[in-house]
Amino acid sequence: MSAWTHRHVLDLAAFSLDDYATVLELAQRFRAMPTSGARKLPALQGRLVTTLFFEPSTRTRSSFELAARRLSADVVSFTPGSSSLSKGESLLDTVRTYVAMGAELLVVRHRATAVPQQLAEALDAAGERVAVLNGGDGLHSHPSQGLLDLFTLARHFEPEAPGPQALQGRRIVIVGDVLHSRVARSNLWALTACGAEVVLCGPPTLVPDAFADFVAAPPPGQRHDPVPRRGRVQVQRDLDAALQGADAVMTLRLQQERMQQNLLSSLEGYHQRYGLSHTRLQRGGRPLPVLHPGPVNRGVEMTGGLLDDPAVALVDEQVRNGIPVRMALLYLLAAGGTQSILNPSSSRP
Amino acid sequence: MSAWTHRHVLDLAAFSLDDYATVLELAQRFRAMPTSGARKLPALQGRLVTTLFFEPSTRTRSSFELAARRLSADVVSFTPGSSSLSKGESLLDTVRTYVAMGAELLVVRHRATAVPQQLAEALDAAGERVAVLNGGDGLHSHPSQGLLDLFTLARHFEPEAPGPQALQGRRIVIVGDVLHSRVARSNLWALTACGAEVVLCGPPTLVPDAFADFVAAPPPGQRHDPVPRRGRVQVQRDLDAALQGADAVMTLRLQQERMQQNLLSSLEGYHQRYGLSHTRLQRGGRPLPVLHPGPVNRGVEMTGGLLDDPAVALVDEQVRNGIPVRMALLYLLAAGGTQSILNPSSSRP
Amino acid sequence: MSAWTHRHVLDLAAFSLDDYATVLELAQRFRAMPTSGARKLPALQGRLVTTLFFEPSTRTRSSFELAARRLSADVVSFTPGSSSLSKGESLLDTVRTYVAMGAELLVVRHRATAVPQQLAEALDAAGERVAVLNGGDGLHSHPSQGLLDLFTLARHFEPEAPGPQALQGRRIVIVGDVLHSRVARSNLWALTACGAEVVLCGPPTLVPDAFADFVAAPPPGQRHDPVPRRGRVQVQRDLDAALQGADAVMTLRLQQERMQQNLLSSLEGYHQRYGLSHTRLQRGGRPLPVLHPGPVNRGVEMTGGLLDDPAVALVDEQVRNGIPVRMALLYLLAAGGTQSILNPSSSRP
Repeated sequence: MSAWTHRHVLDLAAFSLDDYATVLELAQRFRAMPTSGARKLPALQGRLVTTLFFEPSTRTRSSFELAARRLSADVVSFTPGSSSLSKGESLLDTVRTYVAMGAELLVVRHRATAVPQQLAEALDAAGERVAVLNGGDGLHSHPSQGLLDLFTLARHFEPEAPGPQALQGRRIVIVGDVLHSRVARSNLWALTACGAEVVLCGPPTLVPDAFADFVAAPPPGQRHDPVPRRGRVQVQRDLDAALQGADAVMTLRLQQERMQQNLLSSLEGYHQRYGLSHTRLQRGGRPLPVLHPGPVNRGVEMTGGLLDDPAVALVDEQVRNGIPVRMALLYLLAAGGTQSILNPSSSRP
Repeated sequence: MSAWTHRHVLDLAAFSLDDYATVLELAQRFRAMPTSGARKLPALQGRLVTTLFFEPSTRTRSSFELAARRLSADVVSFTPGSSSLSKGESLLDTVRTYVAMGAELLVVRHRATAVPQQLAEALDAAGERVAVLNGGDGLHSHPSQGLLDLFTLARHFEPEAPGPQALQGRRIVIVGDVLHSRVARSNLWALTACGAEVVLCGPPTLVPDAFADFVAAPPPGQRHDPVPRRGRVQVQRDLDAALQGADAVMTLRLQQERMQQNLLSSLEGYHQRYGLSHTRLQRGGRPLPVLHPGPVNRGVEMTGGLLDDPAVALVDEQVRNGIPVRMALLYLLAAGGTQSILNPSSSRP
Repeated sequence: MSAWTHRHVLDLAAFSLDDYATVLELAQRFRAMPTSGARKLPALQGRLVTTLFFEPSTRTRSSFELAARRLSADVVSFTPGSSSLSKGESLLDTVRTYVAMGAELLVVRHRATAVPQQLAEALDAAGERVAVLNGGDGLHSHPSQGLLDLFTLARHFEPEAPGPQALQGRRIVIVGDVLHSRVARSNLWALTACGAEVVLCGPPTLVPDAFADFVAAPPPGQRHDPVPRRGRVQVQRDLDAALQGADAVMTLRLQQERMQQNLLSSLEGYHQRYGLSHTRLQRGGRPLPVLHPGPVNRGVEMTGGLLDDPAVALVDEQVRNGIPVRMALLYLLAAGGTQSILNPSSSRP
């Protein structure tokens, strides 16, 4: 098994196939731990994880905090509502305060693209030994969500061995507001790395044609693609055509503000063309698992009936898998990017 | 001692005399634990309690959280202020997110009546193994408050054996805004179950005559009353008459908005007719303990002097007793409603 | 080593030289503990610390909470935003609720001067065995900040033995809005007690002449000064003159509202006259450490370049030292003001 080399986790565009394999294997081990009783690992005992959610999100923050606590870490949460950010302090100064208090792992979410990256660079430049985990930045990246989606799909296809190979040759449909979705972007990097073919579906206002080339070149600032050969990405306007031969479908949260921006004419029309339902899925001829990053607008992205059908909707499963996937990331980052983590003789979690 | 059979705690109308005895006995044991030093029990080690206070209340939430931590549980708090509920997600979907993250015990408070019940039913229907503890819903029910009031009174009358029998034949006055009080309703179920006579006192706008029949029939949706014979409830408009022969008096928080609703003419007039003071209590001829669910409007429900007199006011004692009573509820629910908890040989807390 | 006698920590005006020595020695021990791994002491195991920040401050609250957790205490945070203070409850009643829940150590911050003192007196009068630690009150006092500044300076001058003697004869400049700064007031008591000479610098609107007599007499309500002989305080309007021969300089946060109050004409003018920069410090001829309670307005109190120069700016070091200093205070208060804490044979932390 290969060594983990990342000091921070900022964007899945930087992940190699080995990185995905490492995270999925660790997550699968953590997933197998009992969910009650003696369910804590001492791995991060006495270490301080700080969540800095400049864009609020109770559920993602709770997921990170529970993951940290299951590794026995201490957790401090910073939320700007109760802070002095309004007083004109620089973001980096705020973050450095927590580093000075002893934080070793920072989970950062921000409305603006690249804030976690910039913080990581500035902290590295200042010689701080601290890891930054991107908890979602602007429209750019949401790596822990991309990884938990990948893990959920891999477990669906290969429950016993949910590695990257479980996605090889699969056809995964992503339907909805791809343009404004960091979740979609992170999924594009993860799924194509593992050899899946991704079909993007939605109106041109939400799924521009250019997205077919999204993973064709590494993003700005990254020299090369660590994945030698990626699965294909295509854009398909018709959802029924997209679902033909698909292995899974992921639908994205639709923000009500898209209507005011004139990117959509009506929610009803959107649901009719891009909404998921039992009826629509049955046209494809076989049961198709449905993913959604949550929270779902019932009757928009999918019917309430579909969301409530555990034989189809993997939404709760995604939330459940968020904990072991985030445990894996915290565990790997706590090791500081210097060790082979998964050596079976020395470091079984 | 009898088995605990409740999967959820939603309304004291469903409590049998054995249920009260079980909770009071456990609470008394927890109350005897040291309040510092090694004051944690491993009972809920590694289990996740989630407080979902859709209606904010720092003190009740803190009480539940401290109770959970003294049983070594992990606690996650959801407060809608920092959430995405505003984004149009269904309440059940929010709650299911926490269940998917591993929550086994949910403490739910909501402005609307019956929300905890509806959540419990929906979670049961979905096959989730999770317990719901009503932290207060609308004007309906506040079972943990009713139980801590009962425990406080039982300890006052019988410090060594504060069981239900300690209330038998006692005359308890509840004065104030009974109509808008879930605390009063939960106390009515608890006190009459234990054989106390309850005298309700207040103006007709706040204490309608119909309350004399409040416990005469089980509430909507409950087939029968688990308590074969309850104490009597009567309405008495004159507070001095009500206090004659009383063993304790509970006064309820008066919301300022009652004035705007024209249910009251003035706070001064209210205090004169229904406010408690040393002078008024001394008319009854013997010391009478005073309860209030807090926070007190000094000079309205009672004088500040009365509140500050520990020989009379049990308000701090109620807060103190909230911890062991809530520990008892969490402890019983964590066992899943399947076991005899209080068997002395196997399960001393 | 002498006994600790304070039941509360409200104002450094009440500290003797022995008190400073005790806190600094304990802080130095706690500072030497590993910052990861087994970095918890069992000293406050099972004891409840409650932070009541009626004036919000995420970073100070986080610092106290981390200090409490490193001593293995339980922590509950009260913030008025999520509370019922708005309902007209008295502040003391709120605080008593937490005492009734078992809080033994209260950290109180409030916009109004003397609130922590009044709470401490009222709790003492009520016979409650609880310690109040002033987390900052109005313009009056911020003892933990004064102590962490003292500790930071003492460590700078005498890294191995950072006791009060490290400040003897030092010349410390405090520049900025002294008038509105509880930090400056607490530093004045601490620094002069340890024999430092303090030079206050700023315009007359922010540094009135009368501050030269600030420590000349004990504050209202305190009978005598526990420090027999204090260092001198002087006011110097010219910053370059003030820095001549200085050993360290502390600059204070400037609130933007001072402009609207017409206490200042412009931020640019302020920076030019009272702002710190490499250029200005080099005029003094030798490297001068710079302190600031944070958060810094870059380009106002000091240049960004100065703040980012770890050879000069001790700001991160102040934040770091906040944890062991607050641990020392919590540790001493938890002992209840009755014991000799630092007896080497019985109580090494």
